[in-house]
Amino acid sequence: MTTKSYGHRIRLGMVGGGQGGFIGSVHRIAARLDDRYDLVAGALSSNAERARSSGRDLGFVEDRCYTSFAEMAAAESQRQDGIEAVAIVTPNHLHFEPAKAFLEAGIHVICDKPVTTTLEKAKELAGIIAESGRLFVLTHNYTGYPMIRQMREMIAAGAIGRLRHVQVEYAQDWLTQAAETTGAKGAEWRTDPARSGAGGAIGDIGTHAFNLAAFVTGETPDQLLADLTSFVPGRRLDDSANILMRYASGAKGMLWASQIAVGNENELTLRIYGEKGGLEWSHSVVNELRFTPYGEQMRIFTRNGAGAGLAANRVSRIPSGHPEGYLEGFATIYREAADAIVAARSEQKLSGDVVYPGITEGIAGLAFIEAAVASNKTSAWAKLNI
Amino acid sequence: MTTKSYGHRIRLGMVGGGQGGFIGSVHRIAARLDDRYDLVAGALSSNAERARSSGRDLGFVEDRCYTSFAEMAAAESQRQDGIEAVAIVTPNHLHFEPAKAFLEAGIHVICDKPVTTTLEKAKELAGIIAESGRLFVLTHNYTGYPMIRQMREMIAAGAIGRLRHVQVEYAQDWLTQAAETTGAKGAEWRTDPARSGAGGAIGDIGTHAFNLAAFVTGETPDQLLADLTSFVPGRRLDDSANILMRYASGAKGMLWASQIAVGNENELTLRIYGEKGGLEWSHSVVNELRFTPYGEQMRIFTRNGAGAGLAANRVSRIPSGHPEGYLEGFATIYREAADAIVAARSEQKLSGDVVYPGITEGIAGLAFIEAAVASNKTSAWAKLNI
Amino acid sequence: MTTKSYGHRIRLGMVGGGQGGFIGSVHRIAARLDDRYDLVAGALSSNAERARSSGRDLGFVEDRCYTSFAEMAAAESQRQDGIEAVAIVTPNHLHFEPAKAFLEAGIHVICDKPVTTTLEKAKELAGIIAESGRLFVLTHNYTGYPMIRQMREMIAAGAIGRLRHVQVEYAQDWLTQAAETTGAKGAEWRTDPARSGAGGAIGDIGTHAFNLAAFVTGETPDQLLADLTSFVPGRRLDDSANILMRYASGAKGMLWASQIAVGNENELTLRIYGEKGGLEWSHSVVNELRFTPYGEQMRIFTRNGAGAGLAANRVSRIPSGHPEGYLEGFATIYREAADAIVAARSEQKLSGDVVYPGITEGIAGLAFIEAAVASNKTSAWAKLNI
Amino acid sequence: MTTKSYGHRIRLGMVGGGQGGFIGSVHRIAARLDDRYDLVAGALSSNAERARSSGRDLGFVEDRCYTSFAEMAAAESQRQDGIEAVAIVTPNHLHFEPAKAFLEAGIHVICDKPVTTTLEKAKELAGIIAESGRLFVLTHNYTGYPMIRQMREMIAAGAIGRLRHVQVEYAQDWLTQAAETTGAKGAEWRTDPARSGAGGAIGDIGTHAFNLAAFVTGETPDQLLADLTSFVPGRRLDDSANILMRYASGAKGMLWASQIAVGNENELTLRIYGEKGGLEWSHSVVNELRFTPYGEQMRIFTRNGAGAGLAANRVSRIPSGHPEGYLEGFATIYREAADAIVAARSEQKLSGDVVYPGITEGIAGLAFIEAAVASNKTSAWAKLNI
Repeated sequence: MTTKSYGHRIRLGMVGGGQGGFIGSVHRIAARLDDRYDLVAGALSSNAERARSSGRDLGFVEDRCYTSFAEMAAAESQRQDGIEAVAIVTPNHLHFEPAKAFLEAGIHVICDKPVTTTLEKAKELAGIIAESGRLFVLTHNYTGYPMIRQMREMIAAGAIGRLRHVQVEYAQDWLTQAAETTGAKGAEWRTDPARSGAGGAIGDIGTHAFNLAAFVTGETPDQLLADLTSFVPGRRLDDSANILMRYASGAKGMLWASQIAVGNENELTLRIYGEKGGLEWSHSVVNELRFTPYGEQMRIFTRNGAGAGLAANRVSRIPSGHPEGYLEGFATIYREAADAIVAARSEQKLSGDVVYPGITEGIAGLAFIEAAVASNKTSAWAKLNI
Repeated sequence: MTTKSYGHRIRLGMVGGGQGGFIGSVHRIAARLDDRYDLVAGALSSNAERARSSGRDLGFVEDRCYTSFAEMAAAESQRQDGIEAVAIVTPNHLHFEPAKAFLEAGIHVICDKPVTTTLEKAKELAGIIAESGRLFVLTHNYTGYPMIRQMREMIAAGAIGRLRHVQVEYAQDWLTQAAETTGAKGAEWRTDPARSGAGGAIGDIGTHAFNLAAFVTGETPDQLLADLTSFVPGRRLDDSANILMRYASGAKGMLWASQIAVGNENELTLRIYGEKGGLEWSHSVVNELRFTPYGEQMRIFTRNGAGAGLAANRVSRIPSGHPEGYLEGFATIYREAADAIVAARSEQKLSGDVVYPGITEGIAGLAFIEAAVASNKTSAWAKLNI
Repeated sequence: MTTKSYGHRIRLGMVGGGQGGFIGSVHRIAARLDDRYDLVAGALSSNAERARSSGRDLGFVEDRCYTSFAEMAAAESQRQDGIEAVAIVTPNHLHFEPAKAFLEAGIHVICDKPVTTTLEKAKELAGIIAESGRLFVLTHNYTGYPMIRQMREMIAAGAIGRLRHVQVEYAQDWLTQAAETTGAKGAEWRTDPARSGAGGAIGDIGTHAFNLAAFVTGETPDQLLADLTSFVPGRRLDDSANILMRYASGAKGMLWASQIAVGNENELTLRIYGEKGGLEWSHSVVNELRFTPYGEQMRIFTRNGAGAGLAANRVSRIPSGHPEGYLEGFATIYREAADAIVAARSEQKLSGDVVYPGITEGIAGLAFIEAAVASNKTSAWAKLNI
Repeated sequence: MTTKSYGHRIRLGMVGGGQGGFIGSVHRIAARLDDRYDLVAGALSSNAERARSSGRDLGFVEDRCYTSFAEMAAAESQRQDGIEAVAIVTPNHLHFEPAKAFLEAGIHVICDKPVTTTLEKAKELAGIIAESGRLFVLTHNYTGYPMIRQMREMIAAGAIGRLRHVQVEYAQDWLTQAAETTGAKGAEWRTDPARSGAGGAIGDIGTHAFNLAAFVTGETPDQLLADLTSFVPGRRLDDSANILMRYASGAKGMLWASQIAVGNENELTLRIYGEKGGLEWSHSVVNELRFTPYGEQMRIFTRNGAGAGLAANRVSRIPSGHPEGYLEGFATIYREAADAIVAARSEQKLSGDVVYPGITEGIAGLAFIEAAVASNKTSAWAKLNI
């Protein structure tokens, strides 16, 4: 569909991520870390002045500092040196339209999560992606951690036997008070149904927890029962979500997502139990994985340490004992996106080791949110509409 | 009601706890630790030979090695040097009758938990206790830990503000396989509805978790939603319980009790979040309490360490940094029972610091089990019938 | 030597340990825990009133509340129901004379550490013990911890191969300020050379660290280099000791003992490395032992957990996952003393599993202190005079 | 000295770091992370083919793939678009000559540690640096960790009062066996005195520990006593170093550096005690700092968390609770080098917040190694010749 020549790195654009934002900067570092991208264009802000000055900071040439994603998609798809992929890092309600525009312009999309604000839109996007023939990468970044990959590989290899219980938590405390009324960065749109969708904590962090549990176990619950609460007076979305899960396989689970759990900065914990063993991982000890085969001692797997498998090692960058963290995990999604883009250039088959999340995971996340909201209304178990 | 003279220590009897049992030995150490009791009589076994030989090991005189609790209650209440209190350490279904017998014989009762196998019986026992004028102590031993006392004191003093979320877990792995069919100590009766009651994991350990949460927060949920599972084929009671809780105050909670969580020997975790702060405690770091006032650093309280309050210090025996554990916590219940018994001798008022659990906690535990079983059947929220 | 009849329990006396003291109470709990002793007599204080009232608290009859150990040794050895063993829990400078008196009166001695204030006296005591034919038990209580026993057993069995490096620490902070001038319990005599001996931190806690390293490795260093410091102005003994060690086998070690390490309540850490593996244990996680076979994952041994050996299990009282602590470890020394006393009654051979410390360990401790003091003076390596 | 125009990013070259090396790749990621450099030239290998193919991988143009640092220094200093700075990532014995060449060519130098293999050469280099007027940055990367900056800032602000005791350790296990004879990456030259200098473990990791202790306390010991050992038969340099330290201020310290401590992948621990408080940090929990003011509870500072100061926050990239690690810390040195280079362009004064290590730290490191080797020979205290 294009006759562009491709250089040493993938030419990348960005929508959103102007000065002052957190997530745009994270995406940029992630793209840079493994030296697979050149960030050359952006619709970083809808404010012309901010778009220009943000673009200048990043070394964009003047005519690639766009103020509208539509204009950017149109222009870049025409340029001989146009971008091959775009990163969309806007708030949730501004994912769908740019994703559609770039895909239809023949440009691969790397999109922040959740993919859209409604399940219906997510499914619509799936159709657009399929039609476009372009890649769609959803930055569920926690799937990039080496020990998460290790966990997934071990479970797939049968280390814990048949799945029984999933205990997953994502606890923060930054919304303990009404941060949305005091100008806290990101609090305002995250607590606004119009911009965030129907989920508060459940959408912002619950989906990460849900996605991660599915990623490592290979199973997605088919129904759930949710008790959602907005503890802070005046808050319009849940800030704490208590959820029970049931899997078609007979496994069960509990998921807790809270943004009012004082003392938890960003604690994400995943404990998976099967017939033969247990695996435990926590974000605060990100480079370790605790594994107990039933009847034996617990053993500590470490990133790149003794017994770490191929899945973990191929996404590790430095020797064991040297901490890797959030940015490295995020960068792994970008690296795998790059692998996929390069494979797509020549229509080569992508290695099965590359397991970045995409629209399927995006749809599952929205189905999770909608089921939780539905269950919360009826106080009954709700099926996930995946 | 008696003209007995009381010695330096309280004369104690025991029902159950013959050779080879675990919990009887624990009760005896607990009774001994602070030197407040003389164990002098017992119906340690219904087998005459085992009763005698177990009694001899403990130094009982021959005629105080009973084979029936009824006989024992009758005989001891007649002796000038008869027991003042009895410890009941039989399986669950054998608590009610001995408790009734000793209370009616004017003897104080210290009883292992859960108090009975049904809520109905627990409520019946409450009447008997009231009528007897005797003391009834339920050994919810985890309430004896100094840092649990500290937690309770801090919450009562407003350290975390109004309660919002309770996250409580009790995870073990010793029933991962069908231990009840392979002769594992205690597994058989614990998985038998006739002897354990309607709850498996939920009764054995879930009640501890439930009790502890209530003990520290001062609040008891008024409804719950439970999803109970028996993962091991053929098992007649739940071995894993996933529960959501709602409090009248608007607080919420999650409770997980599992005996198939491989890698968890006996992990009991309590995390309590309020409007102003969070408190976290875990059994595996039993002498520490993590406290985070909102917006400040987490600080580590230790047993007898800086800032530890009166409630914790009065149940600590040794200086900070020297680990105290399970037996000490258990002994604290016995110590407080002794305080109460001594106060009762002279009809003195008992200090408000003495907070051992009793029939109220026993009833709450049974109400918890019955509500969980009911909710599990209907897949709907069930009210606790307290 | 005696025609006394022995009862169900061992009759025990105590020297020191009057009201208000810490260590006396610890010894009493330790003696009581496993129900092997009856404490019936004491020279609890040299103050007659305090001796009597302390004795009364413990249920002693009037004429067994002594005010002098010499009188007590004489009287008890004459009584038909006299004590069979005595616990000496006085400050360091008051160990030798009572030990001598009771041994010569044919009574077994259980003595707090360090055994004496000088190496010379310790060696003299060794002769007295040998001549008396009585048992001498030194309460190096930390050797009683199950995971310390596990460590010792694993090293003896070759789990880490030939010993290379010993890293041992004992850090406290209670002498950070001049507690000896402000009435802090135990601070006064511990910082007084006349009562403590030549070592401050090195004697009080350094000897524990030294003893423990020898206990688990089976090797004692033959020379050391010490840098001792009294950080608090006016303090007459060291409050921090930095020591290098060399073993005859070629192994090396570092030992740090400090009472001014702010933030360490009572942290004792033992890390042992050999040609084939490493073992790590810390007092703050007393029921765990970390073991890494070279080239494999670290695994966590727990008290009574998977893979725990006989040496650990026989000194464990309760199932894995239930914390045991300081009092239990201390009680294990008393239990093993009881085993030894019972064996001695009938001149039976004692099981090789019973490994309580005695005068040999006492002499090694004093040799350690004296070598450290000598090395500190000369700034050169000093040999241990064992 | 140059009329070159400077672009958006700093043009950077590299000496060493060809395909397959670890540290070159780390330097490149570190340079890339904050987008302050363009890596455009290199003498990546002395093998022409490898130099070219490594350079091609990095996108260098053909004539900037040098095979000799001398040639590179000469050529780059002549180019209008020549490099402004060079990163030297060769083994230790190949630091001095390239550093000299680039400095004399007017090019700033960023050099891996230790700066040279002898103290004499380090001091000679100091003169060359001074004469050149160029910047010299030594990548003691651990100084870039936010919590290390926090520690430094707190100590400087008096949080722990006057310094008393420094306990610092760096333990690894990768040289437990004779890795240098089995082709392990980096093991060969690190155990070769000709390429590593006089220090083995002490040079490779001991200098990091030494540097870090000085960095956070602001004090450097003036004498030390070292016991160095080569445990592995045939090894020519120490693989374990036990060191006592004395400071002019009266403070004391212990430093342990070992590469045979089985179970330690890369554990670096720093515990600092003063008259008023203690601070503890460990590499395995890199984003936390434990602080205990004397007589108060320990509190946990976290990266970007409550109470974190300016020094830590300015080198943090992402919110608290999201792990940052080794690469980020390394990148901070590059970021500060960039700040310094930009300031140097215009002869502006550099902010006092920029605290990257340089030749002074390099000289201190070599003085440390040489004193340790000297002390080890004489078994006596040796002065540091700084």
